[in-house]
Amino acid sequence: MNKVTVKINGEEDYIVNIGSDLLKDAGSIISEVHAPCRVAYITDFTVGAHYTATVVDSLKDAGFEVFIFAFPAGESSKNMETYEKILEFLADNEITRSDLIVELGGGVVGDLAGFAAATYMRGIDYVQIPTSLLAMVDSSVGGKTSIDLESGKNLCGAFHQPISVICSVDTLETLEKKYFDDGVAEIIKYGMLGNEKILKILHSCVENHDNLYFALKPFLSEIVEESISTKLNFVKSDVYDNGKRQFLNLGHTIGHAIEHASRYAIPHGHAVAVGMCSIARAGEKMNITEEGTANNVTALIRACGLPTSTIISPVDLYNSALSDKKRRGGEISLVIPVKFGECEIKKFKIDELKNILTLGVK
Amino acid sequence: MNKVTVKINGEEDYIVNIGSDLLKDAGSIISEVHAPCRVAYITDFTVGAHYTATVVDSLKDAGFEVFIFAFPAGESSKNMETYEKILEFLADNEITRSDLIVELGGGVVGDLAGFAAATYMRGIDYVQIPTSLLAMVDSSVGGKTSIDLESGKNLCGAFHQPISVICSVDTLETLEKKYFDDGVAEIIKYGMLGNEKILKILHSCVENHDNLYFALKPFLSEIVEESISTKLNFVKSDVYDNGKRQFLNLGHTIGHAIEHASRYAIPHGHAVAVGMCSIARAGEKMNITEEGTANNVTALIRACGLPTSTIISPVDLYNSALSDKKRRGGEISLVIPVKFGECEIKKFKIDELKNILTLGVK
Repeated sequence: MNKVTVKINGEEDYIVNIGSDLLKDAGSIISEVHAPCRVAYITDFTVGAHYTATVVDSLKDAGFEVFIFAFPAGESSKNMETYEKILEFLADNEITRSDLIVELGGGVVGDLAGFAAATYMRGIDYVQIPTSLLAMVDSSVGGKTSIDLESGKNLCGAFHQPISVICSVDTLETLEKKYFDDGVAEIIKYGMLGNEKILKILHSCVENHDNLYFALKPFLSEIVEESISTKLNFVKSDVYDNGKRQFLNLGHTIGHAIEHASRYAIPHGHAVAVGMCSIARAGEKMNITEEGTANNVTALIRACGLPTSTIISPVDLYNSALSDKKRRGGEISLVIPVKFGECEIKKFKIDELKNILTLGVK
Repeated sequence: MNKVTVKINGEEDYIVNIGSDLLKDAGSIISEVHAPCRVAYITDFTVGAHYTATVVDSLKDAGFEVFIFAFPAGESSKNMETYEKILEFLADNEITRSDLIVELGGGVVGDLAGFAAATYMRGIDYVQIPTSLLAMVDSSVGGKTSIDLESGKNLCGAFHQPISVICSVDTLETLEKKYFDDGVAEIIKYGMLGNEKILKILHSCVENHDNLYFALKPFLSEIVEESISTKLNFVKSDVYDNGKRQFLNLGHTIGHAIEHASRYAIPHGHAVAVGMCSIARAGEKMNITEEGTANNVTALIRACGLPTSTIISPVDLYNSALSDKKRRGGEISLVIPVKFGECEIKKFKIDELKNILTLGVK
């Protein structure tokens, strides 16, 4: 088992435990950071069916009293209604400030249970057991929790750090291919932000594979650890999302526009993959990006089975980007690759984005 | 206008502005701490009817664009439904992270709008304009925001500091007498915790008055300032509610039990008033409290027109106290006056509370 200690300015440290077959040890891992107490275990029906028995038995063996809450899998559950149900469940089972939430699942479960933990009694402790690659390499660092509003995704939430994270990479075996690929896009991003080990593993695995999961399987613990370390490097000292953390948005401005314009039919990682290719192409045409970078990025992303371009028009993408309510004033910061493994943040007037989107389209 | 700077460990400082007739200057006061932006102005129908025009005009004059959200007054609005409506209102009006919430009202408006500010886009700035005495002297320091669940009051919330507070004491003129008295109970508490100026003003005003509000009127700015300074003294370095801040619970353990047992028919301040008398009486009988203290406390509280005892039985109060889900383990900390102006925190086994309640009953 590998451990990454997450130290973020002004927040309590916690450990991300990474390895295979860790779920049966969840109870003992958690008992290292929390005394026996009442545990609200939160999961979705789909992933919960695979792993709940193992985790709950392990928690009980370690002396925790467990109360189980499960809800239907999928983004459509990530709303005010499920949030309220979780809160009432916590209250009905007399969970107090000295008790614990343990969540097992992908991003939806993590975001929901994390937001409940952030706000129930103004904040109680929680443990993340991410079971999707994206949740392992992205959600496990940064403390972002959220739910969707009618008006848009992730518009309501809080920053709340877990007290422990358990990444058991064997759980990725039950993950649907498109969700696995979603996580791979994020891993490629960490490579492009400078993690050479990740790039090396990816390049060695992606050629001539029949199934990306099986090709990457021997390296998953290392990939997850390297990804978390890279993200941590950008998030540290910047937990409130203002400065260096912006590098993590590589591919995300265009990616979010693609997701939005497709009404979320295109999954996050697929959209980010296209976003990374597009910004590299536009960067080359603006003489910011070293020649050949776009080709290299595109080749890697294509080899991972992810898309490299979109049929959505630059005008539609521009309108989607404008409607993103997080946009601050009339300027936009874009993360642009200078070369493979090195990026820069550049500010543009919002109307310059239309031109950049046109340059990046293919 | 008096100013108290609220500096709490690890949080941004902000100023509480205290004076009379400040609402017409709200815009210029706020423009000192926030650039012109979109403002979501949140209030309730009752208090909003008195002051909205003045505040909104002042905000517009200072260059803010204002969007108004109002809801029915009263605790029954402090729920998930109103919270969700506020969030959707913010999104519909394209409030971003660089915009602002300004709330005007008593505790319910402050708690709701503050929780929305704490969680919309994971936290945006907000300004409090408290119009009840309790909100001025209590909610303006500490950053507590919350909503009620079906299962209990204030079970969901967050800590979120305002960027500015405007206490315009003339707004207390439209406050119902029982709500004004509610605030007075909290002020007496600050006196008992050691603020001699407050005690002096109260003692000089409460004798031979026909109307407590008019008797206290010339001193309201001073009382609010002194109360806030006293609260601040206990909250500083302890924003997460663990140590010294516990002194602020004087009268509140029994007070909460009274509120709960009466199903909230007895208002907060009235219950706290009885709680302070009860714990002083019990303290004397346990030889913790100086003889005569209970009589002095009771006399002051009675002179303010607040109740000093309850007809609810000690057994019912005990059961209500037990059902308080915030109770940590088998112990309870009680704040007990040693003498007028000095208190101590003592730990008791939870079952000793029944005896203490019996000793305190009258």
